[in-house]
Amino acid sequence: MYMTQCLQRTLQQNPEHMATIFGERRQTYRQFGDRVARLAGALQNLGMAPGDRVGMLALNSDRYLEYIMGVWWGGGVLNPVNIRWSVPEIVYSLDDCATGILIVDEHFAALADGIRATVHRVPVFIYAGEGEVPAGMLGFEPLIADAVPVEDAGRGGDDLACIMYTGGTTGFPKGVMQSHLNLWSACMPRMVDMPPVRNGRLLHVAPLFHVAGMARALIQFLAGETHVLVPSFDAEGLLQIIEGEQITETLLVPTMILALLAHPDFDRYDLSSLKRLTYGASPSASEMVEQVLARLPQIELSHSYGLTEACPVVSSNLPWNHTQQARQSGLSRSVGRGGLGVNVKIVDPQGNEVPRGTVGEIIVRGPNIMQGYWNKPEETAKALRNGWLYTGDGAYMDEQGYLFIVDRLKDMIVSGGENIYSAEVENILARHPAVAMAAVIGIPHEQWGEAVHAVVVRKPGAHVDEQQLRRYCRQFIAGYKCPKSIEFRDALPLSAAGKVLKRQLRKQPS
Amino acid sequence: MYMTQCLQRTLQQNPEHMATIFGERRQTYRQFGDRVARLAGALQNLGMAPGDRVGMLALNSDRYLEYIMGVWWGGGVLNPVNIRWSVPEIVYSLDDCATGILIVDEHFAALADGIRATVHRVPVFIYAGEGEVPAGMLGFEPLIADAVPVEDAGRGGDDLACIMYTGGTTGFPKGVMQSHLNLWSACMPRMVDMPPVRNGRLLHVAPLFHVAGMARALIQFLAGETHVLVPSFDAEGLLQIIEGEQITETLLVPTMILALLAHPDFDRYDLSSLKRLTYGASPSASEMVEQVLARLPQIELSHSYGLTEACPVVSSNLPWNHTQQARQSGLSRSVGRGGLGVNVKIVDPQGNEVPRGTVGEIIVRGPNIMQGYWNKPEETAKALRNGWLYTGDGAYMDEQGYLFIVDRLKDMIVSGGENIYSAEVENILARHPAVAMAAVIGIPHEQWGEAVHAVVVRKPGAHVDEQQLRRYCRQFIAGYKCPKSIEFRDALPLSAAGKVLKRQLRKQPS
Repeated sequence: MYMTQCLQRTLQQNPEHMATIFGERRQTYRQFGDRVARLAGALQNLGMAPGDRVGMLALNSDRYLEYIMGVWWGGGVLNPVNIRWSVPEIVYSLDDCATGILIVDEHFAALADGIRATVHRVPVFIYAGEGEVPAGMLGFEPLIADAVPVEDAGRGGDDLACIMYTGGTTGFPKGVMQSHLNLWSACMPRMVDMPPVRNGRLLHVAPLFHVAGMARALIQFLAGETHVLVPSFDAEGLLQIIEGEQITETLLVPTMILALLAHPDFDRYDLSSLKRLTYGASPSASEMVEQVLARLPQIELSHSYGLTEACPVVSSNLPWNHTQQARQSGLSRSVGRGGLGVNVKIVDPQGNEVPRGTVGEIIVRGPNIMQGYWNKPEETAKALRNGWLYTGDGAYMDEQGYLFIVDRLKDMIVSGGENIYSAEVENILARHPAVAMAAVIGIPHEQWGEAVHAVVVRKPGAHVDEQQLRRYCRQFIAGYKCPKSIEFRDALPLSAAGKVLKRQLRKQPS
Repeated sequence: MYMTQCLQRTLQQNPEHMATIFGERRQTYRQFGDRVARLAGALQNLGMAPGDRVGMLALNSDRYLEYIMGVWWGGGVLNPVNIRWSVPEIVYSLDDCATGILIVDEHFAALADGIRATVHRVPVFIYAGEGEVPAGMLGFEPLIADAVPVEDAGRGGDDLACIMYTGGTTGFPKGVMQSHLNLWSACMPRMVDMPPVRNGRLLHVAPLFHVAGMARALIQFLAGETHVLVPSFDAEGLLQIIEGEQITETLLVPTMILALLAHPDFDRYDLSSLKRLTYGASPSASEMVEQVLARLPQIELSHSYGLTEACPVVSSNLPWNHTQQARQSGLSRSVGRGGLGVNVKIVDPQGNEVPRGTVGEIIVRGPNIMQGYWNKPEETAKALRNGWLYTGDGAYMDEQGYLFIVDRLKDMIVSGGENIYSAEVENILARHPAVAMAAVIGIPHEQWGEAVHAVVVRKPGAHVDEQQLRRYCRQFIAGYKCPKSIEFRDALPLSAAGKVLKRQLRKQPS
């Protein structure tokens, strides 16, 4: 059970099938497989030993898929770097899991100097972007051209496949260790419930460094079907490519779907090829669902709930619960039921299962659950107890096993499909010399679902304004994590134990 | 990853769904799950420790499914006994893997005395048949009624789940060790390619002691859908139950399908509920395929190739290759392509992959491949080399990865869907005092595909006739393995090395 098996299988059974389409670049599986085997050889020549980490910091492209399969083919482990991160966050992850090789594209090559200046061990940089290879980097294309294709290194099962960083409640990102077996098992329920369309084409919009985009890519590889990639979201461009490349399926966050539907030229495009639309990362998307089904009636809609630690899908709400009837009964508001092989329970704070309809914490067990957090045994012990992953998400389960998310027990904000841990932002704010105390909450936002909002208490006599504090945050953390609005108060509402009462803060917005 | 997870999942999500239908007996998953948890408790009370073997010798029924899930739920390992075996064969398997508990029904209870008389350690007998519980046996129903339901024992992954006996080329049956992971992985490709019909009903005709019937049952459990069982094949009965219970899918061998189609009342039944028909165990079924598609045009036909050591499916030929076009191109004669996660290669006698179109031996690798043969390290080492299972089946692969079986490299006969190893029958014949030499081959047979044919050389001056030899064989081996015809000769054609030249024998039938 190893993730490159699906590529071997397609190379045996369907080698002339189109593998990737990226702008004008198109390649069959035979061509893709050849490049993967050469990239694997090149990485080995650069010193990648079995289990060694290789990072990629780039927008989506065909080369990102070559990176995924090439590293595994050569025996390495992925460290897909969050493209929204600041240099200190990137350096933290490279240092944390000792990433020896980092692939960058033209959008991120400029960060190389900043990384070199602070990273503990400077990685080998490979440039997979357009145009000239910057000084001090190796070229992705020359490396592939010069390398000899190698045999698949044969790692699989419990061998580590990927370290994917997720925001940390303690303020530091945590490296989620995903094995080949984890990833394979995570793909299976979706393969069964929503197998990719035969001879279909998947449009990758969700970033591949993110577990949802990565998992959907792996499912497309398992099916041996075609990947179409765009570097980033743009409503007009998406409408063009869906029509032009006859896209059959895609994965989007509700914010993107709403932007598509709101585009003035929406009705001018023929989107009839689109058969499947998966959405996620949204607590409440009823309005979006109604709009999609009214304007694209041929579409099968499905919704998933998951987290990086579950690689990621825990539950799915399938097309048959997006019918008129299911929408009336409220079932379309559910995040669905546990997938094949995935155990889901709702428990009270003592870990005992609660009756149906009662809110508690979602816990999950199954072959898809991560091996743990890289180098963080204490965090791992907190998250994994007796084989169960404690998600920190609050929900109830109905009599048919449907999950309804009601709260996030972890102090987390979901904005535009990204998870943001309040503690991480609070830690940055608290380090500012003028800040005495800071609390970060999510407030409702029409476009992004939630927006990051900070409530700050200044030190006596100190001066700092909203703009200065936001600029300060941007030096250390990704833009999407920075407060969109900051409110200054004289004090924060505290519990008897001295804990900030966030519920009260949420009730009293500025 | 453990096989009882699917039952837990259905109990959580769809407990009032019908689990089993057997004649007048019907039970929901809630009722089935309760009986399984009680049976598990009863077996533990009888001494079943984790990993202990429990056998069942019975025709198909709802109780057979309770046995499968109950033993696993309680932490045990299945030993599903071949119902066609003679007492010495049964005793061999019970002794070989130390089966401590044996469940029998009314059709096989009469064999208990014979088993007791020769088995090394007498098992606890449980009677799961109709009517009075025979003396010296415990009743299946009272055991369940009196037991307290227990928690799932939690075995899974590489833990042994089942020992399934297969004919031995050396003359002794071999116990194939199948882990939970093996069985789960074996089900996945079929779940993806041919997921059970939603709210569908599977009719079990293939015996559950056989790997094909067992695997199909597990797939139905994974889907949480309904099982309908009949004790054995009967064309009229099958037509009635397909119409009466609105069967959506079944698994049959071509012999049975032909018998159904040939039934004089075939056209009187409404078989429109039947959507899926899987067939296997046939080298050439073109005629049957044409007939099915002409008379049941709504049916999706699929064909699988596999073996007990692969749990069992290696490759599947899916419905789209049973179209008019595929039949004309010859693709419908293929046994299909390797499933998800299953590596298939055709190799020469040195183990090197041969070019497409060249005949060689099929070898298979994947998470579905058995752990080995119970207590037979030498046989295991012969069958499993570098992780590859050497099947002994000859085939070629086309450019699209389709397998075409052309020969059996192992000396094996397939009669009515059963594998018969010539060596096993030859060993029995050779032990007869009047027999000097014996060779067993398959000869074409209209109904059974092949029939067992023996060529015997008598000892000088010895006398034995065909009828006596057949009666003699029946004492030691199952009826289906006994020669249907015996020919006496003065000598057998031998190679220079003294090996019987079976090809020559096949060319010169009596």
